[in-house]
Amino acid sequence: MKIWLDGAIRDAAVARIDPADRGFTLGDGVFETIRARAGAPLHLERHLRRLRTGLAVLGISLTRSDAELAAAIGDALAANGHLDAAVRLTVSRGPAARGLWPQELGPQELGSATVVITCVPALFTLGTARLIVCSSTRRNEFSPLSRIKSINCLDAVLAKREALERGAEDALLLNAQGRVAEASAANVFVWLKGRLATPPVVEGALPGIARELLIERCGAVEASMTERDLRASDAVFLTNSLSLREATHLDGAPLSRRPNLLEDIRCALESGETGALP
Amino acid sequence: MKIWLDGAIRDAAVARIDPADRGFTLGDGVFETIRARAGAPLHLERHLRRLRTGLAVLGISLTRSDAELAAAIGDALAANGHLDAAVRLTVSRGPAARGLWPQELGPQELGSATVVITCVPALFTLGTARLIVCSSTRRNEFSPLSRIKSINCLDAVLAKREALERGAEDALLLNAQGRVAEASAANVFVWLKGRLATPPVVEGALPGIARELLIERCGAVEASMTERDLRASDAVFLTNSLSLREATHLDGAPLSRRPNLLEDIRCALESGETGALP
Repeated sequence: MKIWLDGAIRDAAVARIDPADRGFTLGDGVFETIRARAGAPLHLERHLRRLRTGLAVLGISLTRSDAELAAAIGDALAANGHLDAAVRLTVSRGPAARGLWPQELGPQELGSATVVITCVPALFTLGTARLIVCSSTRRNEFSPLSRIKSINCLDAVLAKREALERGAEDALLLNAQGRVAEASAANVFVWLKGRLATPPVVEGALPGIARELLIERCGAVEASMTERDLRASDAVFLTNSLSLREATHLDGAPLSRRPNLLEDIRCALESGETGALP
Repeated sequence: MKIWLDGAIRDAAVARIDPADRGFTLGDGVFETIRARAGAPLHLERHLRRLRTGLAVLGISLTRSDAELAAAIGDALAANGHLDAAVRLTVSRGPAARGLWPQELGPQELGSATVVITCVPALFTLGTARLIVCSSTRRNEFSPLSRIKSINCLDAVLAKREALERGAEDALLLNAQGRVAEASAANVFVWLKGRLATPPVVEGALPGIARELLIERCGAVEASMTERDLRASDAVFLTNSLSLREATHLDGAPLSRRPNLLEDIRCALESGETGALP
């Protein structure tokens, strides 16, 4: 496997991250998972916009332009010969001395960012998922990290692991107030009273790209919701850049389902037409 | 600089972390910061116990024994010729395929842990700190991550950065309920009504080693507290394994101080005698 690392394509088996990289020592960075189709990344402008929002929140300076990042993604796909792929673009703050923010350097930006691009073959998938309500952890809607895609993924890892241990495929993370925020690596939508709704970003939902498209193109609205709302809805589904999954169960109890739900959502997303949903 | 990485002392300038290491991609790991004095790590048993608690919470399997880790720390100190040092022991889950928990592998443990030990010269410091109440983020007491020392340090990074931007040295992180949890990389203690108190772990305080010693040896108690309690207390101080700092201000307003506070606390900690405090 080839990866793009700090300016060049390298063999993944020998590519080196410095052990002092703050990505490794502190989880200090952000990433994007981008779908590529026919060798081209989809919605790249949106992904890069979100990446830069995350970098700004963390105060990480990235000198490479969007055009350079786009070219690098193209190079990584080409080097591996992938057409349909999952691309991961990671930007960390780079290597630095010990400490959360080495004090002698003051509040300025630290280090020189590390950029890694990896890709693996992947097709967009439609599927189903049994859900549980995560009991081991919650989203922190009081942290700006809930609104950016940072490398601090351990709450999501714990939620996913709990789901698998409990015989499900994914877990719903509640926020500190006990309302639904998102799934471990996907946004949650419900079809309720004839409209599509998804938890607001201020409730701890990551502003997902597929989520953004469903709001812009399909009239989905942001609405706070509880587990009870999910149980009362006509359908529940999960979106991210690589998949669309209909939830079949919540904590073992069947959820209502809607015929052709996923195909309808996919068509609406891909057509880009407002009101494309039946 | 020499570091210990996965079984051997290596030159830090060429030591390699795999870009697929989950420490780098997801912040999936834990660490300890350990003070060494006269070439020997202090309270190593306590640090390793906390490390293993964190590994258990995350489901990371580490085959190396405590004796092996202790020997490795000794080797890292000796290789650098350090006597008084800050040692960092990092354990990540190691390299793995893409995804929070690659599904085909089921809920079992993933990967082969990566172990890194670095050390830099450092003396234990006594000092003062102007504090602010962090407004940019909060601790998540609903997450087990608040009770282990994971690599997901970004909330602490944001808090520290805000403190420096606002002309202070450290920031108090509140929890979701608005009560005091800890500082960016230190536990908070108050001297109030003749006793020492510190926020409970369930309120989002990391179970620090110096904190543990103050509870065991100096009769400090766990008590929920608000900013107001800090302002009303006779003294406020911060502890971690490398420093003891008296807080002089909170959001610009002076705090009460106690003569010889830090020296008294240090004596009590080092003597190991209950009731050593005046």
